Amino acid sequence: MPPQVPAGRAPAHAAMRKRSILNLCVLALAALAAPSAPAQGPEVAGYRETVDRLREAGLAGERAHEFLGKIASVGPRLTGSPQAAAAVDLARALMEKLDLERVHAEPVEVGHWVRGTVAEARVAASASRAALPLAVCALGGSVGTPKKGIIAPVVEVRSLAEAAALGKALEGKIVFFNRPMDRRVADAFAAYGGAADQRVAGASAAARFGAVAVLVRSLTFRDDRHPHTGMLRYEPGVPRIPAAAVATADADALSALMKEEKGVSVTLRLDCANSGTTLSANVVGEITGSERPEEIVLVGGHLDSWDLGVGAHDDAAGCAAAIEAVALLRDLGLRPKRTIRAVLFMDEEFGGTGGRAYAVAPQRKGERHIVAAESDRGGFAPVGLAVGGRGTKALDLVSAHADLFRPLGVSFIVPGGGGVDVAPLIEKGAVPAAVMINAQAYFDVHHSALDTVASVHPRELELQAVILAALAYILAQEGV
Amino acid sequence: MPPQVPAGRAPAHAAMRKRSILNLCVLALAALAAPSAPAQGPEVAGYRETVDRLREAGLAGERAHEFLGKIASVGPRLTGSPQAAAAVDLARALMEKLDLERVHAEPVEVGHWVRGTVAEARVAASASRAALPLAVCALGGSVGTPKKGIIAPVVEVRSLAEAAALGKALEGKIVFFNRPMDRRVADAFAAYGGAADQRVAGASAAARFGAVAVLVRSLTFRDDRHPHTGMLRYEPGVPRIPAAAVATADADALSALMKEEKGVSVTLRLDCANSGTTLSANVVGEITGSERPEEIVLVGGHLDSWDLGVGAHDDAAGCAAAIEAVALLRDLGLRPKRTIRAVLFMDEEFGGTGGRAYAVAPQRKGERHIVAAESDRGGFAPVGLAVGGRGTKALDLVSAHADLFRPLGVSFIVPGGGGVDVAPLIEKGAVPAAVMINAQAYFDVHHSALDTVASVHPRELELQAVILAALAYILAQEGV
Repeated sequence: MPPQVPAGRAPAHAAMRKRSILNLCVLALAALAAPSAPAQGPEVAGYRETVDRLREAGLAGERAHEFLGKIASVGPRLTGSPQAAAAVDLARALMEKLDLERVHAEPVEVGHWVRGTVAEARVAASASRAALPLAVCALGGSVGTPKKGIIAPVVEVRSLAEAAALGKALEGKIVFFNRPMDRRVADAFAAYGGAADQRVAGASAAARFGAVAVLVRSLTFRDDRHPHTGMLRYEPGVPRIPAAAVATADADALSALMKEEKGVSVTLRLDCANSGTTLSANVVGEITGSERPEEIVLVGGHLDSWDLGVGAHDDAAGCAAAIEAVALLRDLGLRPKRTIRAVLFMDEEFGGTGGRAYAVAPQRKGERHIVAAESDRGGFAPVGLAVGGRGTKALDLVSAHADLFRPLGVSFIVPGGGGVDVAPLIEKGAVPAAVMINAQAYFDVHHSALDTVASVHPRELELQAVILAALAYILAQEGV
Repeated sequence: MPPQVPAGRAPAHAAMRKRSILNLCVLALAALAAPSAPAQGPEVAGYRETVDRLREAGLAGERAHEFLGKIASVGPRLTGSPQAAAAVDLARALMEKLDLERVHAEPVEVGHWVRGTVAEARVAASASRAALPLAVCALGGSVGTPKKGIIAPVVEVRSLAEAAALGKALEGKIVFFNRPMDRRVADAFAAYGGAADQRVAGASAAARFGAVAVLVRSLTFRDDRHPHTGMLRYEPGVPRIPAAAVATADADALSALMKEEKGVSVTLRLDCANSGTTLSANVVGEITGSERPEEIVLVGGHLDSWDLGVGAHDDAAGCAAAIEAVALLRDLGLRPKRTIRAVLFMDEEFGGTGGRAYAVAPQRKGERHIVAAESDRGGFAPVGLAVGGRGTKALDLVSAHADLFRPLGVSFIVPGGGGVDVAPLIEKGAVPAAVMINAQAYFDVHHSALDTVASVHPRELELQAVILAALAYILAQEGV
């Protein structure tokens, strides 16, 4: 031991002190029930044992991550692809094996865009240097280029407005949208939202003025050579021009080059194409309610994914959390008064055809969705809950149970929730809900080759599933 | 676009919806000031601009991670090692380069334990199988084995109490402490605290009854072959026996084998040794207060580390966050009324000699530490703050500024804080404080070869530094 420890006094050591400090924190957290929360009544006490059982059953293993691994094992699940079809079959079989009830697939007609095998861009050589290859990928929905590619001078802009201001100067050009996600914004989703318009609307904004193609800076905080794909939207009546995402490192290199040289040209080749429509499906399984089976608390994610990685965070994680939440309740023999249903939606990434089809499917007749919880924020550590709107019964109800969620990492409960897949249900009156997560690393992997099974922490995902199970159970028992 | 989109209606797409949902959440968070917080007064408004500037300056880059990389670049910084000495020089030079004030090193006499080069264990061959190697490492402070090793039959136990109950049956045996961290506990630190007694006290608990060595299951939730080291404590008057950590996968394999075979023996060879004491140092730099320079708000971490990885999370991260917090304030020209001081302590891991030396150093004469914030929980995403004790002015003060911290990811403010290094200051009246983080993955890497620079997310660490800067500044302006 170090000589500084007085003789006869047990030296304080790191582990013990850390433990006592943490215990203090845990006690403090427990003691610090938000003053706004009502005193713990019989209702909270009544669910405490249930939530404890869910936590112990869930955290004893890492089953949600196993489910995620199974879903991802079919490969990238681009809407309309054979892999997406395989995922439908696999998810249905998995739900049946887990003894969920009324397991079935519901047909959805989806578009099918094919990435192809060519995504090539290079800065044309100049007198003083060789050609410079750029790491690119086609944006989802993009048309391809002619087989020999497009070569055109590049114009760099930072916004849709800047492109519009240049107007006819864009004619015959490749427009390079290069506004980064704003690093200074602490909320990564907000930073993403602040830059995504370039990817979604950039092609038509440029094509309106005669541009021949667009390059869009990848939406990530990282400086690397992984392009990040994602959907674009062509405006009706505007020519459809090819659109590619450029990795951030390459976007910076291109931008730097354009400061040094005038008249920089880029060659772009893409062989992606839209390939009509095809039949796919949403996958559904549940625990049917004992008293009001027609009232439904939905937990869901989307089964389709982008195709550069395997869509682990986006959104095998959400699917796995939904399946695990219902499976945990089933394993513990908890039959709620109202139905708790896992729905794995098809085609979130190209605009939510699955969510819209689900909302109007014949099976919905006589059903009423009281809550729709969509998990599509990645498989990271939960930090809070978003439920319904301020002053709604659902938010008040969940807030009254804050003590039960706090030990699971839920430090705030706010109005919110929702998402592409459940939007049609929310329009019909379902209360939105969602587990809020730590998203600082989400856009590192989002829509890129980095969205892999290994990038999801098994315990963080399992915590999401446990929280989702507890949330769904309380809402299904109490109603909203 | 998918055919389901009604003609003439702009299709809702994922990015836009995600954005609007997130905006809703952000608005909701902003609106949802905890009812317990006082209405926003001039005080909160007065710091808003400062906190915004700190956030923008910090998050614009990833400088804390660069500092972490520099510290880790000297290698593992075991107390008393040449690498620890190099880290002292490097940290001092870094603080000077960043224009911190009164930068200096303060001497600390530390113990020096040397791991050596041999850490070998294998289950002896039996009639039916070959010898089975086990992935092990010496525990910090352990004595070595004789050069040819120790071979002895193994007794598996799950607790110190179980070992004590076996009593004389342990004589001549290698005792194998194999109680896992309790996965069902959501708080990873609490699960660690619930199992660490085996590592800290197992050797003496077994040696008291004549055991010849101990093997201790590594303290992690992961199932892998990385042993996790950490300090042990020999009790005075009890024979000092060699102690090694076993990787979890190997602990499970050994345990399974012992269920199949009787009389399983293990050979253990370690050449670690204590090597007396040596002179090391704490590193100190500050922004001297303009009105009460003798009143100090301390932010700190520990410069020493374990030696299997490079101590990136534990605790180059805490050092980097402390340096960056003070450097950010300095860069922005913010001179607080009271002194804000970064202290990089030496020798947390072997019991806190640096913290004790700092508290009684001659430089402390005339100084009064009003707050001591220790960062030693890993470089993960911040989720909350722990400050002082319930009903203290410091906690009330920070809670009154909750609105400023919430956008940085701080979702709760509770009584707590503290740690090995600042414990002597807290005994003298300093208020403890700490940024609480998402720790689900901390013990995956803690004290193992996995604690590397790449395992720390640059933006998560930067957020810690920004929060620490804002916290220290408000406390230094307002006092406690």
